[in-house]
Amino acid sequence: MQLPQRVLLKEVGTRDGFQMEKQWIPTKHKIEICNLLSDCGFQEMQFIAFVHPKAVPNMADAEEVLQNIRRNPHTNYSALIPNRKGFERAYANGIRQVEMTMSATDSHNISNLNCTTQQSLKRVEECLALGLDMKLAVGIAVAFGCPFEGRPPFERIKWIVDSLVGMGIREIGLADTSGVGDPRQVYEYACRLREAYPEVHYYFHPHNTHGTAIANVIAILQAGITTIDTSVAGLGGCPYAPGASGNVATEDLVQVLEAMGIDTGIDIDKLIAAANRTEEVVGHSDSATLRAGKLDQIVEGGPHYQCNL
Amino acid sequence: MQLPQRVLLKEVGTRDGFQMEKQWIPTKHKIEICNLLSDCGFQEMQFIAFVHPKAVPNMADAEEVLQNIRRNPHTNYSALIPNRKGFERAYANGIRQVEMTMSATDSHNISNLNCTTQQSLKRVEECLALGLDMKLAVGIAVAFGCPFEGRPPFERIKWIVDSLVGMGIREIGLADTSGVGDPRQVYEYACRLREAYPEVHYYFHPHNTHGTAIANVIAILQAGITTIDTSVAGLGGCPYAPGASGNVATEDLVQVLEAMGIDTGIDIDKLIAAANRTEEVVGHSDSATLRAGKLDQIVEGGPHYQCNL
Repeated sequence: MQLPQRVLLKEVGTRDGFQMEKQWIPTKHKIEICNLLSDCGFQEMQFIAFVHPKAVPNMADAEEVLQNIRRNPHTNYSALIPNRKGFERAYANGIRQVEMTMSATDSHNISNLNCTTQQSLKRVEECLALGLDMKLAVGIAVAFGCPFEGRPPFERIKWIVDSLVGMGIREIGLADTSGVGDPRQVYEYACRLREAYPEVHYYFHPHNTHGTAIANVIAILQAGITTIDTSVAGLGGCPYAPGASGNVATEDLVQVLEAMGIDTGIDIDKLIAAANRTEEVVGHSDSATLRAGKLDQIVEGGPHYQCNL
Repeated sequence: MQLPQRVLLKEVGTRDGFQMEKQWIPTKHKIEICNLLSDCGFQEMQFIAFVHPKAVPNMADAEEVLQNIRRNPHTNYSALIPNRKGFERAYANGIRQVEMTMSATDSHNISNLNCTTQQSLKRVEECLALGLDMKLAVGIAVAFGCPFEGRPPFERIKWIVDSLVGMGIREIGLADTSGVGDPRQVYEYACRLREAYPEVHYYFHPHNTHGTAIANVIAILQAGITTIDTSVAGLGGCPYAPGASGNVATEDLVQVLEAMGIDTGIDIDKLIAAANRTEEVVGHSDSATLRAGKLDQIVEGGPHYQCNL
């Protein structure tokens, strides 16, 4: 089994997680969670989004969060943006690393961003044309399946990647936004894209809607993509399946990767503490770790039971 | 990615699932669920256990269930047994395929069966010595990790398999009873055991306690083990983590395997109907499919939302 020695986890819980929350999360709690996560040792945290507050009310205080968190000098703090306006707002606030999102299908792009995929590509060009000192990653949503159009053909993903690489983008995300990708597909798309552009730094953004996120992560690691977006306490979600799981819980992935001997650089005990506090703040979670505890825990004595093969 | 064309799923929900239920499940409901599952196309169903009713109250009506289910001629109906008494009871009831369970660690074996692993091996010999026309599989519980002893070394598993093969056993199960195995470990143990005894038909019994069951299944398929135990509606559980997940939900695994182009032979719509009915009967479930729906569903129109990369 071909596996990397090290995996880079990008924590997105306070962005992808908090944006899905219906209730207002007080700014001080956002700052507190960011600080707890900063202590865990992430190489990157996508901690806020610069989006219109009417679209995503919980990101309205992005500036205040940004100004008040305690930064870990070993962590890169990045933001999500939907367009040039967000790009400029991020830059004005001292952010030097952003991710812009677009969708593999027009239906999803229109639903999400009110323009076609092609028009979103133009928005990337507009941002680049500003000539600002900003690292721009582009995430391709619904890359493995769209709630409106089903599975996009690989050629569609390839066309987007071709266009992005042509513009000079070297950080490209493959997002399984609805969690409908499967390990074989994820592996194959990843292999083909890496073969086409070995110079691109690809990353994977899994959702656990159908319980397959960890399997998809292991598959894409085998294909050589080793940067993974995860969310503390498994926050996030899918607007089409309200009861479904969100992003893969960071603590679940850290535990299984470390068990496999793959280094994540994360302090699991601090992370579990952060996940517990996150659950308290938002009132829910979707984390096997929070339900079942640590993988390597030993039961002292233990109850008697029978025939639980 | 090396994957099989076909996977054999053994449905164990009415055995491993029902045995964990604290409340009594009326016999007529057990029969109803067995019948719904029989219609789905499983090649094998381990539908009951012959164990002492004090140990597992919900298996007390095994004979009545057995006599009243409607059998699918394409399905093998097997039972779980803990010892010779169960073996004889199964045989007397016309069962010709049983699985006996023992644990990789003495601590777990003692907790579960009140004897050491070595003594359990003797029990297998006792059953074989009866010379009955019965196919006997042996499942090794906690093969990838024990709640009392942690990870058993591979040599311990190998010793058990050596002993079983020496007795003539050719069906051997590797059970991740506490759901603490990881994909690399599962893959490696499977490769080494297959290499040692290619003539053995191995099967895998995953639990989803830590959210890793599907990842572990995909890993073991890559290692060439293609018979997997699953449980309708994700029933089952872990006595040490009451809120944790149970077995992997059959419908979740069927969906992802079929998406990967791997044939399971299961009618997914009938299976989802059976899972829904199971959830009604037992009052709970742990199934991404029941929460999120089918993998390939298409949302018509769909609500507008923003920036859900």
